[in-house]
Amino acid sequence: MTSGSLNEVDSLATLTAVELRDGLDAGQFMTSDLIDKLLARIAEREPDIKAWEFLDADLVWRQVEELEKRNAKGPLWGIPVGIKDICDTRDMPSTYGSPIYRDNRPRSDAAFVARLRQAGAIILGKTVTTEFAYFHPGPTANPLNSGHTPGGSSSGSAAAVADFMVPIAFGTQIAGSLTRPASYCGLPGYKTSFGLHSLVGIKGFSQSLGTLGWMTRSVDDLALVHAALTGTSFQQTDTHKIAKPKIALCKTYEWSHAQAETVDAIESAMKDWSSSGATVSEITLPESFSHLLEAQKAIMAYEAVQDLGHELENHADQLSESILALLDAGKQCAYSDYIVAQELAGQCRATLASIMADYDALLTPSAPGEAPHGLDATGDPVFTRIWTLLHVPTINVPGYVGPNGLPVGVQLIGKMYKDQDLFLTAKWCHENFSRQANNKPV
Amino acid sequence: MTSGSLNEVDSLATLTAVELRDGLDAGQFMTSDLIDKLLARIAEREPDIKAWEFLDADLVWRQVEELEKRNAKGPLWGIPVGIKDICDTRDMPSTYGSPIYRDNRPRSDAAFVARLRQAGAIILGKTVTTEFAYFHPGPTANPLNSGHTPGGSSSGSAAAVADFMVPIAFGTQIAGSLTRPASYCGLPGYKTSFGLHSLVGIKGFSQSLGTLGWMTRSVDDLALVHAALTGTSFQQTDTHKIAKPKIALCKTYEWSHAQAETVDAIESAMKDWSSSGATVSEITLPESFSHLLEAQKAIMAYEAVQDLGHELENHADQLSESILALLDAGKQCAYSDYIVAQELAGQCRATLASIMADYDALLTPSAPGEAPHGLDATGDPVFTRIWTLLHVPTINVPGYVGPNGLPVGVQLIGKMYKDQDLFLTAKWCHENFSRQANNKPV
Repeated sequence: MTSGSLNEVDSLATLTAVELRDGLDAGQFMTSDLIDKLLARIAEREPDIKAWEFLDADLVWRQVEELEKRNAKGPLWGIPVGIKDICDTRDMPSTYGSPIYRDNRPRSDAAFVARLRQAGAIILGKTVTTEFAYFHPGPTANPLNSGHTPGGSSSGSAAAVADFMVPIAFGTQIAGSLTRPASYCGLPGYKTSFGLHSLVGIKGFSQSLGTLGWMTRSVDDLALVHAALTGTSFQQTDTHKIAKPKIALCKTYEWSHAQAETVDAIESAMKDWSSSGATVSEITLPESFSHLLEAQKAIMAYEAVQDLGHELENHADQLSESILALLDAGKQCAYSDYIVAQELAGQCRATLASIMADYDALLTPSAPGEAPHGLDATGDPVFTRIWTLLHVPTINVPGYVGPNGLPVGVQLIGKMYKDQDLFLTAKWCHENFSRQANNKPV
Repeated sequence: MTSGSLNEVDSLATLTAVELRDGLDAGQFMTSDLIDKLLARIAEREPDIKAWEFLDADLVWRQVEELEKRNAKGPLWGIPVGIKDICDTRDMPSTYGSPIYRDNRPRSDAAFVARLRQAGAIILGKTVTTEFAYFHPGPTANPLNSGHTPGGSSSGSAAAVADFMVPIAFGTQIAGSLTRPASYCGLPGYKTSFGLHSLVGIKGFSQSLGTLGWMTRSVDDLALVHAALTGTSFQQTDTHKIAKPKIALCKTYEWSHAQAETVDAIESAMKDWSSSGATVSEITLPESFSHLLEAQKAIMAYEAVQDLGHELENHADQLSESILALLDAGKQCAYSDYIVAQELAGQCRATLASIMADYDALLTPSAPGEAPHGLDATGDPVFTRIWTLLHVPTINVPGYVGPNGLPVGVQLIGKMYKDQDLFLTAKWCHENFSRQANNKPV
């Protein structure tokens, strides 16, 4: 494991987005100071971490210049963000992690990227994605231990935020592409309610599952970005002034996949939150939910054959074995089976809404355990598939540390469209989780 | 009104897709014979109708040549189709009806276009769309009376099929972009269950409403295309051998917009189907459904601001007044109002599923009346907005004729994901509708 040292990182690079916003507003430093520090950090660390698919310092500085000419400030004014390279950018390549699109230069920004620019954000660069945001990995290493995967498919976004290269980075999730890397890299990671943000200009392969999300280094930052993208106001909540949350542990039918450190993290969370005054209990999902994992796989595979129809028809020789296997599975999924899976998902969504009426959030694992060793695979999305299919918002709450010293997060499940409530619950839970992790630059 | 004459149209151009498939299979004629006749028809009629945004005869012939080299035949082998110019094509421009994209040459096919090619279809060309499939019209005239609009936004697709230039053409619907032109041009027109087909490579502006669909000259052809795109088998059903359908008239809260000819068409359908043995009744939707029209408008406007974020941020000077007005409305729609509208839609979808359990289909207007005079507007989607929002499949059944001799269709509403059942009901209804229209080339 190679690493920089704490002393080499200027404190500006370690600030959260809210802290940066406040500092910029107060004139304590300039955006250019921040960019200087981040580019220096990236120059030092990128050879080991490989979080960025594309980063052009000149282009970043041009954005800073343009921003200084604008009159209207936005809610992310001067804040740098990383964009997963599955998303289109009008001034940067978009490879989608595939050799088919190695030279792809989209003429338009993805819709949410345009909105970020309007909010005053600086698009620092494109972060590494697995091929089409499926399993075939890029070169990115976990900044907490470069012999381990950062998770995927939002690999570069997770690594860049965790390594203090950028305070905010965007990802997407069809199975577990955001929650899992957030857990592996020790970050708050938020998957939005399905449909809440435009996917125009994002190269997805499963339109009934694909969801935008982002990772930051504080729960407040998750809420800040949500406010910026929805035109709502952001307030930092004092969690001492809100009601103690009602949390229900939900082991799901996938519980046997939880490794010891994940079981420990869940038990630790239950104990911590209970002793801090939360109402904690446990629920068991109806038997129908036991079929959701397979339903998610069927829908994903069936839709991949549709959504990647152009690539399959014209560029099959440039597709990886793993995505070809997904497409083969999709071809085996009959239309009638796809409809059955969709109908099951619809029924379970309604059932879940009834179950959740009594709770602020459900608690469930984010991943089986710590980030696995090696960079040739990105880990198992077994604990996120059903929640992506159920369309509800989720947040990875970091804090626990596993036997190899790597992060283990827990996942909070919110109610459909109640994303703002989930930020409050997650902030309370995060503050009351006896974190053993020490989220500091290595 | 200018027109060709019946004698000038070779019979091949008037055949349905099923008839063409059978004739090609039986070796009665070759694809090249068909292409000859269609190109001749288009050459004669296009100066008056202006259905095509792009059509390159050389490119069509190259597709015919490539098709003849392939071993595996597909379910649409040799059948020409028209593609609405809101959809990407790897070998043709895609303007989205906007000057911003005048020179746009996508590198990939839209996913459903790739699937059509795989099925053996010939992409004849790109049909005229209104700007971004909203209201600002293209030049297309109604082939049944060129002083009247063909409807929109799928204007060129409707006109091309109605004018015997192509047997199948694809459209999309966010408010009423497919059902309305189908009604105005006297065609079976099918909007699919939401989410059933990939929208990858389609330039939409409302991701929770946008839906693929197609228009043909027979109900069987609607089903043939569905089978080809879903990998299911197609059978021509003898409607004498199926149970008589149970149909419920549903006037909706928009009934006051129905003009005399639409009221007549609905009453005529009820009378015809009843006397042919169908069970006909009438239902009233719960009061909550009266708010769906405004909910659809709010969701569409809110999402347009997101989905057209790039164009709004970079090319506002090239947007029409009508779409700028939509975007202004969207900016006025608060996030909380958007969520309320989405929640209402979700509740009404569940309620509708219960209501429809007792019926095969609901009967409701497709449009206020005949196609309005003039080409500067495309008519009112008032009778389709709520059904698009409710995500259920719909079919325009043509047959009735209004006071100006122009078509007036009626709309059948199916159950979510029960698209195949709806084809059967629509075929029975179409055959038992005392059509006064005579669907012949002018």
